[in-house]
Amino acid sequence: MSFFPASLETLIDKFASLPGIGRKSAQRLAFHVLSLPEGEAESFANAILDAKANVCTCRICHNLTENEICSICASDRRDRSTVCVVAEPRDVLSIERSREYNGLYHVLHGVLSPIGRIGPDDLRIAELIKRVADEDSEISEVIMATNPDTEGDATAMYISRLLKPFDVKVTRLAYGIPVGSNLEFADDATLLRAIEGRIEM
Amino acid sequence: MSFFPASLETLIDKFASLPGIGRKSAQRLAFHVLSLPEGEAESFANAILDAKANVCTCRICHNLTENEICSICASDRRDRSTVCVVAEPRDVLSIERSREYNGLYHVLHGVLSPIGRIGPDDLRIAELIKRVADEDSEISEVIMATNPDTEGDATAMYISRLLKPFDVKVTRLAYGIPVGSNLEFADDATLLRAIEGRIEM
Repeated sequence: MSFFPASLETLIDKFASLPGIGRKSAQRLAFHVLSLPEGEAESFANAILDAKANVCTCRICHNLTENEICSICASDRRDRSTVCVVAEPRDVLSIERSREYNGLYHVLHGVLSPIGRIGPDDLRIAELIKRVADEDSEISEVIMATNPDTEGDATAMYISRLLKPFDVKVTRLAYGIPVGSNLEFADDATLLRAIEGRIEM
Repeated sequence: MSFFPASLETLIDKFASLPGIGRKSAQRLAFHVLSLPEGEAESFANAILDAKANVCTCRICHNLTENEICSICASDRRDRSTVCVVAEPRDVLSIERSREYNGLYHVLHGVLSPIGRIGPDDLRIAELIKRVADEDSEISEVIMATNPDTEGDATAMYISRLLKPFDVKVTRLAYGIPVGSNLEFADDATLLRAIEGRIEM
């Protein structure tokens, strides 16, 4: 059943194909775009084309960039002895926001997932090993910062085994109770990890 | 703080400007668009441009259409004696889905809102009065189908007063308990309306 003009239906379909956007939300978004001034709708369309055309992955760390090498890898203010391994480009943003980390990154572009049929060759794991194995490598520590779930843990474990033969320290982010939260609402798995990882005061 | 390439930031900003899309959702949507195959991202952009360029409002009922007159107004199978007044084009879809109504529509493109500074001149109210007042008009009933909230009710009331001088019946949708729901969870206002509007069995 289609009660909308064809080009509007097409736009609704496009929005509905985005992750987390249902049919009703897609309708609302499409109506909003229709109500935009001429120039703004055009600049929305151009933003899609521009991003698609200009954004590529950094040759070294595979983070998103518009250049051959991303601004973090190119910076001479970053500590080149540490590499933080994350699953997705957005995780780089999360860690940068903490302002605590000053090393480099390596973006895997996913995690191992037998159900999703994503194996080691689908991720940028070989590239990480090559970075560490490189003769001129200054890397002394690799921090695994995949998500603390089954797939993220399995990916971190897999990579840490591959890194065993090399002379690098492999660490992972601490698990525990989030700052500002409440013991009462912490789940069992988190509490278990928090107790295991307790430190002396 | 911007850690993403400029063109990606722009795309995230565009998504974040849509209603109901926060910063995190906008990031997820932008990353999704980046991960689309070349042709699909392009067709998304084109869908925006096409819809914006082709969709206009029907000269008679102001519903969205790609032609001068929408398919409902142009159809010879619709009952031309009844006009259903709705706030937004999406409301037409809702009523059509019920498959109960076979008359025409009139889309106001909003409701009266003193807070939002939307007055009668911002809506297609004058056009509705003109339709009813027209010498060749076959309209014998106007059904007010604005949302059952304060602004929708006020808009319906306002229009019904304007229609008083004309020889048309003005009705509104019935208020009451939604079919399939539970008395226990019905709010007071709805129950009040349901009791007021009770009918003989």
